[in-house]
Amino acid sequence: MITVALDGMGGDNGMDATVAGAAALSVEPGDVSVLLVGDVRALSERLDRLRYDPGRLSVVAAEGCVGMGDDPRAALERMPHASISVAARLVRDGDAQALVSAGHTGATILASSETFRRLPGVRRAALAAVYPTEHRHGPKKDPFALMLDVGATLDATAEDLRSFAVMGSAYSSIVSEIPRPRVALLSNGTEPNKGTKAIVEAHRLLTASPLHFVGNVEGLEIPRGTVDVIVCDGFLGNVVLKMLEGVSEVFRDVARQASSRRLQWALGLAMLGGGLRELKRLTDWKMYGGAPLLGLDQVVIKAHGRSETRAIRNAIKVAAKTVRGGLIQRIQQEGAP
Amino acid sequence: MITVALDGMGGDNGMDATVAGAAALSVEPGDVSVLLVGDVRALSERLDRLRYDPGRLSVVAAEGCVGMGDDPRAALERMPHASISVAARLVRDGDAQALVSAGHTGATILASSETFRRLPGVRRAALAAVYPTEHRHGPKKDPFALMLDVGATLDATAEDLRSFAVMGSAYSSIVSEIPRPRVALLSNGTEPNKGTKAIVEAHRLLTASPLHFVGNVEGLEIPRGTVDVIVCDGFLGNVVLKMLEGVSEVFRDVARQASSRRLQWALGLAMLGGGLRELKRLTDWKMYGGAPLLGLDQVVIKAHGRSETRAIRNAIKVAAKTVRGGLIQRIQQEGAP
Repeated sequence: MITVALDGMGGDNGMDATVAGAAALSVEPGDVSVLLVGDVRALSERLDRLRYDPGRLSVVAAEGCVGMGDDPRAALERMPHASISVAARLVRDGDAQALVSAGHTGATILASSETFRRLPGVRRAALAAVYPTEHRHGPKKDPFALMLDVGATLDATAEDLRSFAVMGSAYSSIVSEIPRPRVALLSNGTEPNKGTKAIVEAHRLLTASPLHFVGNVEGLEIPRGTVDVIVCDGFLGNVVLKMLEGVSEVFRDVARQASSRRLQWALGLAMLGGGLRELKRLTDWKMYGGAPLLGLDQVVIKAHGRSETRAIRNAIKVAAKTVRGGLIQRIQQEGAP
Repeated sequence: MITVALDGMGGDNGMDATVAGAAALSVEPGDVSVLLVGDVRALSERLDRLRYDPGRLSVVAAEGCVGMGDDPRAALERMPHASISVAARLVRDGDAQALVSAGHTGATILASSETFRRLPGVRRAALAAVYPTEHRHGPKKDPFALMLDVGATLDATAEDLRSFAVMGSAYSSIVSEIPRPRVALLSNGTEPNKGTKAIVEAHRLLTASPLHFVGNVEGLEIPRGTVDVIVCDGFLGNVVLKMLEGVSEVFRDVARQASSRRLQWALGLAMLGGGLRELKRLTDWKMYGGAPLLGLDQVVIKAHGRSETRAIRNAIKVAAKTVRGGLIQRIQQEGAP
């Protein structure tokens, strides 16, 4: 049995999504149980209205939670028993094996960094985003690729980039079941001498590493998904990821306007049905799984703030799969510089 | 009369596109004439098959041209009379007032940098991309925004970013006819302290400048187009721009597959008509106008390699409009640090 500590309070859809996701998971066949952390009365009230297995889902008390607009450091200091901190301590103390949160990203990173230890050889943690691509990946034909860092580390040295590559490769190999994930550096050209100093040096380090390093890729390859893991510093990853969100929003806006302006367009959109879903999948990617925070000695999955029931349930399952796959051990084995 | 020197040999569509674009322009009402530079016999042969005004279009001889796969420096050294170099010298010597090329981007930048002078106060040139956005810009309701640098300068100091902002603002104000273009820095957060050291310092410099500086924008705002000019270093700009191209290609692939898989989807796409064109415009942006190379003492417009007749004609018109608007003088007036 693998136990996941879930911050029950976080996310734009709040307790409704976390409680429903945890309850749904508890009645599915499987070996995953959940500790739902937060305001006991409010969580229990919601839980009582749903079908769940009390043998695989319990509520753990916490006081307060970090709001989406809060300064994370100040909020965590003000509330020592905030739901994200209590959930992290359950993992640290061995009551759970992984942490899942749909709450404030900065607070999740901060509470994790303060509660868990950095793995030996890892100077900086990285937040990895799972995003949909045109290509399918691995034996499961996963329509997702991994990009890291997307915001935990603003600028990265060559050594940081190398360790991001090791961690991303280990995670991708477990979650997407790809024996040797193709790993690439994001740069402004495919030649080994293209990019910033840190990228050119990281190219050299990765060429000499046991990873399946395929070299540099350009921005074109991000949506195509010709590689399984794209490595970059957190500044670039943040801008790129938010741009993908922006493209997705513009796409929805334009489609909505088109369908409201003319009946013929609305009919056309309706006829597209499955064809349009394929496009939507490629742009409306925020509902999927979770983003792992890599480099600490525990498994941490950050579900997107807008996660709904299914996304929460998926994030818990991904966390359990990551624990079962021995992520931390693999990073330690492969990560020695 | 404004004369534009056009590299007649460059671009994926080669002489067919450049000759047809120049010929079409010469018979339009207006005060623009073209010097078409390249292989006289091959260009004249094509020209003879088209309607054109010999009073506004002449062919100038050059020997050789830089191929899309060539190393630009080696090619320009090997061919001192390559079409791009001859075209640049026509501008330097006053026979033309602007340079337009759809050929090798690196060769265009290199030939321009070697032939023209950098403006006083500008340490580095910047290549600016015009890209389509959801928002409309200025009194012309231009559906485009400007992003710079997109590849001329790999990493930029705060002072470089400031001068990119000055140059981008001057160009946008002339071409999109926006009296005070909204200028922003691309960063990983909107707060003034977000971003790399260079960005934080550039934020300070720009806040104190006479430009209409609106602060930092995140990746989300790139496709939305809530500002008129986005400033970043060439590494970030290159990755972001190529990713926009990638999104556009994936979009086309998926739409093509959808329409070939099912008759119903093909019909749905057909019914969408104009609604789809709007989406296509937002993703299939490579056919539009040209990218100015800014910071030199002459007007240089780089048309996209895939430019067709209409895009070449537009690039020539944009070049003439830029000369008429006094771009170089404006950058000199506004650019003093």
